Amino acid sequence: MTPASSAPIASVHIIGAGLLGASAGLALRDRGVHVTLEDASPSALSLAVDYGAGVPRDPSSPEPDVVVVATPPDVTATVVIDALERFTSSLVIDVASVKGPILEHVSSSQADTSRYVPTHPMAGRERGGAVSARSDLFTARPWVVCEGEPEAIEVITGLIRSLEATPVFLSARDHDLAVALISHAPQLVSSVVAARLSGASPETLSLAGGGIRDVTRIAASDPGLWTSIVHANADAIADVLSEVRDDLDRLIEALAHSDQPGSRKTIADVMGQGNQGVAKLPGKHGVSAHFASLWVVIDDRPGQLATLLTTLGEWGVNLEDLRLEHSPGAHVGFVELILAKDVAAGVEEKLSAEGWRIAGEKDS
Amino acid sequence: MTPASSAPIASVHIIGAGLLGASAGLALRDRGVHVTLEDASPSALSLAVDYGAGVPRDPSSPEPDVVVVATPPDVTATVVIDALERFTSSLVIDVASVKGPILEHVSSSQADTSRYVPTHPMAGRERGGAVSARSDLFTARPWVVCEGEPEAIEVITGLIRSLEATPVFLSARDHDLAVALISHAPQLVSSVVAARLSGASPETLSLAGGGIRDVTRIAASDPGLWTSIVHANADAIADVLSEVRDDLDRLIEALAHSDQPGSRKTIADVMGQGNQGVAKLPGKHGVSAHFASLWVVIDDRPGQLATLLTTLGEWGVNLEDLRLEHSPGAHVGFVELILAKDVAAGVEEKLSAEGWRIAGEKDS
Repeated sequence: MTPASSAPIASVHIIGAGLLGASAGLALRDRGVHVTLEDASPSALSLAVDYGAGVPRDPSSPEPDVVVVATPPDVTATVVIDALERFTSSLVIDVASVKGPILEHVSSSQADTSRYVPTHPMAGRERGGAVSARSDLFTARPWVVCEGEPEAIEVITGLIRSLEATPVFLSARDHDLAVALISHAPQLVSSVVAARLSGASPETLSLAGGGIRDVTRIAASDPGLWTSIVHANADAIADVLSEVRDDLDRLIEALAHSDQPGSRKTIADVMGQGNQGVAKLPGKHGVSAHFASLWVVIDDRPGQLATLLTTLGEWGVNLEDLRLEHSPGAHVGFVELILAKDVAAGVEEKLSAEGWRIAGEKDS
Repeated sequence: MTPASSAPIASVHIIGAGLLGASAGLALRDRGVHVTLEDASPSALSLAVDYGAGVPRDPSSPEPDVVVVATPPDVTATVVIDALERFTSSLVIDVASVKGPILEHVSSSQADTSRYVPTHPMAGRERGGAVSARSDLFTARPWVVCEGEPEAIEVITGLIRSLEATPVFLSARDHDLAVALISHAPQLVSSVVAARLSGASPETLSLAGGGIRDVTRIAASDPGLWTSIVHANADAIADVLSEVRDDLDRLIEALAHSDQPGSRKTIADVMGQGNQGVAKLPGKHGVSAHFASLWVVIDDRPGQLATLLTTLGEWGVNLEDLRLEHSPGAHVGFVELILAKDVAAGVEEKLSAEGWRIAGEKDS
C-alpha cells in the first residue's frame, strides 16, 4: 500500500458530483487538497466544477492519494471495484448510506480490497445535487467507518477529522441495522403519514401545527435516491417496519374496542415507550442526567437576547444549547437555555435578581 | 341570553388551570379582562394564581360573561353541563381537542345548550401545566369554532380574535376527522417510531440526525393527556392508522421481495405520495414569502453567540427567529438566523466582511 499513513493527503479524486461528492470537494479544496471530479453525467460534472468543488481529472496525471466514490448506492459497488482496478495505489472509500451489500459485492470481486474502506457520513440535506453542496456539510456530524486495513483506516480517519466530522466505528452489519432504525424506517413512516394529507381539505390542512410538520418534514425527500437506499437495506428496514406495523395493529385493535378495560392501557403503554425512546436520543433529548432547561421571557428585540447572553458570558456560564421560541409578530418570546444541572438553580436566582422573568425550570 | 354580543367581555371564569386555561388567563388579563380560576386540584390552582393567570372566584361575585372549560377531554362534557347549570346567564365554551362526543353528551343533557359553544384552539406545547403557560400561546393559531347560536358565536369569535387567534368554522364531526388526520394519528405514529429506539445501542443512537429527531419530537408528549384525547376520538384515529398500516404492509411486502420487478415502484409510489402530501401543508406559519434563513458557523463558546447577537443589534437587525444546531461535544456549530428577506443579503455580506463564516442562505 503506497500512501504512508503519516503523510498528509495531497490529492483526492471524487467519483460522483452530487451533494456529498461536491460538498467533500469544496471542503477538501478549502484545506488545500487537489481535488479532481468525475461524474457519469457531463452536466452534473460541469455544474460541480462551476461551483468550485474540483476540476476534471487529466488521465495522464499521477494517481490520487484517495478516491472517494459518492455515487447512488445501487452502482457504488461496481464503481468501487472499477476504481480499485483503475487506480493501483490509491485508497478507495465510498460514502453510500448502506454498507453490507456493497462490502459483500466488493469483497467477492478480484479487486485489491486491502485498499478499500467502506464509510458513511451521517450528513445530508432534503435537496440534492452540487447546487446544494456546502463545504461544512460534514462539520460536527458522525461519519461511520467500517472494516479495513489498520493503515488505511488511519489515513481515512485523518481525512474525516480534517473535514471536522467525528469518526464512529461500526461493522457494516451493525451500521446497516442502525441506519434502518434511525434513518431509513423513519423516512418511510414519515412518507406514509404525509401521503394521508394528499386528499385533505384546505380547512383540515389549515389546522396543521408543528407536530405534523415535524413528523412529515423528511417526507419531502427525493423518491429516486431513497428508493435506491431502501432497496439496498431491505431486510433490516422490513424488520423495523414490521415492529411499527405490529404496534399500530395493537393500537387499531384497542381503538376499535375503546370501551374494553385494557384499551386505555394499550394506548398509554405505546406512548410511554415512545417517551422512553425519544429520551434516549443524544443532544437535546438525551441530556436529562446532566442538564437542566431554563425558560427566560424576552421582549421581541434582538438587543435583549444579546444582553442576556452577554450577562451569562460575564458570569462564565457555559451554554449547552439555546432555543428561541416565539410566534411571528408576538411581542414577547422565550429563550430556553440548556445548562449544566448544577449551575441552573444559581443562574435562575441571579437572573431573577437582575429583573429577568423566568418562565419555569425543569429537567430537560 | 344575557351578554349583548356588541359589549366587550369584562369577566371570564376558567375551569381547569392547566396549560390552555392558564395561558388563556394570562392573555385575557393582559387585555384588561377580570379572570377567575378554579381547578379540581388545589395545588394546580394556586400555581396558576402564582403565575398571574387569574384569581380564585369569590362565590358571591356576579356571574362571568364567559366560562371557559379547559379540563381534560374525558371530563369536559360533565364540567360543561355543570357550568351551564351553575351559571344561568354566562356563555360557556370548552377548548377540548375532541368535539363530537362532548357535544353529543352535552346536547343530551337538560342544560341550556343555547349558551354553549364547543371550540378548540390549535395550540399546545409538549409540556403541560400552568408552568408552561404563555400569554401568546394562541397568537396566530387557528381556533376551531363549532355549532352554536349566532349571537353566542359572535361573542366567542370576538373573544378568540382578541387573543390574536384565527377562528376556523368546522362542524364537530369535520373537526374530529381533521384532527385525527393532522394531529392524533401522527402523534401515535411518532410514539410508535420512538418506541423502537428504547432498546438501541449508544453507537446506533449517536448516528441520529435531524430526521429522526423531527419524526419523534412529539413522542415526548404526556401519555396521560393523550390517552384521554385518543380515546375520545377513537374511530376517526383508527381509520387513519389503518390506512398507515396498509401502506406499511405494502412496503414490508415489497421489501421482503426486493428482487421482484414491482418492488422499487411500490417504494417510489409511497414516497411520491408523501412528497405530494407534505407539499400541501401551508407554509411555516405563512412566513415563507417574507423571511430568509442565514446559517452562521460559531465556535462552541457562549461568548461568540452573544457577540454575534450584539453585532446584529447594533446594526438594528430584527431577528424573527434563531436556532442553535450543534452536536454535544462538537467544537463548532451553527446558528440559523431567520431574517426579513429584504435584509438577509445585506446582513450576510456585512457578517462575512467582519469575518463570520456563513454556511449558506436559503429561503425558509
